[in-house]
Amino acid sequence: MTKSENVVWEKPAVSRDQRQTQNGHRSFVVWFTGLSGSGKSTLANAVESQLHAMGCRTFVFDGDNVRHGLCGDLGFSEEDRKENIRRIAEMTRLFIEAGVIALTAFISPYRADRQKVRDLIPEGELVEVYCDCSLETCEQRDVKGLYKKARAGLIKNYTGVSSPYEVPENPEVVVDTDVLSIEEGAATILGYLKERGFIQSS
Amino acid sequence: MTKSENVVWEKPAVSRDQRQTQNGHRSFVVWFTGLSGSGKSTLANAVESQLHAMGCRTFVFDGDNVRHGLCGDLGFSEEDRKENIRRIAEMTRLFIEAGVIALTAFISPYRADRQKVRDLIPEGELVEVYCDCSLETCEQRDVKGLYKKARAGLIKNYTGVSSPYEVPENPEVVVDTDVLSIEEGAATILGYLKERGFIQSS
Repeated sequence: MTKSENVVWEKPAVSRDQRQTQNGHRSFVVWFTGLSGSGKSTLANAVESQLHAMGCRTFVFDGDNVRHGLCGDLGFSEEDRKENIRRIAEMTRLFIEAGVIALTAFISPYRADRQKVRDLIPEGELVEVYCDCSLETCEQRDVKGLYKKARAGLIKNYTGVSSPYEVPENPEVVVDTDVLSIEEGAATILGYLKERGFIQSS
Repeated sequence: MTKSENVVWEKPAVSRDQRQTQNGHRSFVVWFTGLSGSGKSTLANAVESQLHAMGCRTFVFDGDNVRHGLCGDLGFSEEDRKENIRRIAEMTRLFIEAGVIALTAFISPYRADRQKVRDLIPEGELVEVYCDCSLETCEQRDVKGLYKKARAGLIKNYTGVSSPYEVPENPEVVVDTDVLSIEEGAATILGYLKERGFIQSS
């Protein structure tokens, strides 16, 4: 649904290909999904660090830097979560167009929303990483004390407590963050990226 | 106003400084403003081409690539235009955080909205470029035939016809696009960027 009818696409002066050539690497999206506390942000940052050290252009989007800004007008109702994910997907699309590897760390609990992300990103340029972690472990970690608040009824619509999380059916990568260390998790993802030619194996 | 209360900032693993060092140049925003047909997109693309040729990481946002995606849910009412500009400003903030020079080409007709952009972008990192062009010239060009439609009443809220354009009071650069060629206009902007140390003068 678009309200912007009288809008025509113009060819950009600098193409995505030219940007990828300039950077010396491909651009793509690594979309982390999983419960709060499942290690999405930590893993995304660990993968980014290694990509950066390899000379790649990267950027991590997480609830923390997007929720204060671009999506500061949105809450956590189902509708607002959908819109949140839509905007983030559109933003990553612009980042990969700009030649940057975009890593996103959002719970993104609904299968339908993640499918929409997949529909928006050019085929073969999205790597969905499911951070598979039991609710028990996430709740034990409770880094921000939010599970406690949610259990006490102080936060509404908290994924895993009062709002569903729909497990991905066919993610490109599954990282068992109950068991693996951050280093092992990051290595799993980087291994996949090299194996599939997203990055050079040098 | 933010609805996202239970959100804490986390330190990113790779800093903006590290990205700027990797790229070998500073990141900043060049915000073009002016009537439809005043040459914003064309100038932004011309400046981008030259920056790219100099080895800079750049990206141009215009009504055409943003209105179909990130802001596809917004129309052209005053409220929607405000939200459009807000999202774009937030997005450019992420791009400069990612080390990319962000060039934007939006009419951005309201002074108050442009002031909000200025408040959002770190001080000294925004270059406002006013594409100063008479309505007559813009209307003569009428590249997309939209002025004609607006005069016929087929488009509502069309800037310059049925919606106001508030001339910038203190833009960093004014380009008289009634008189200057694209090359001259781009040279004016690049001259400013070099003079003020945004880019190396090499």
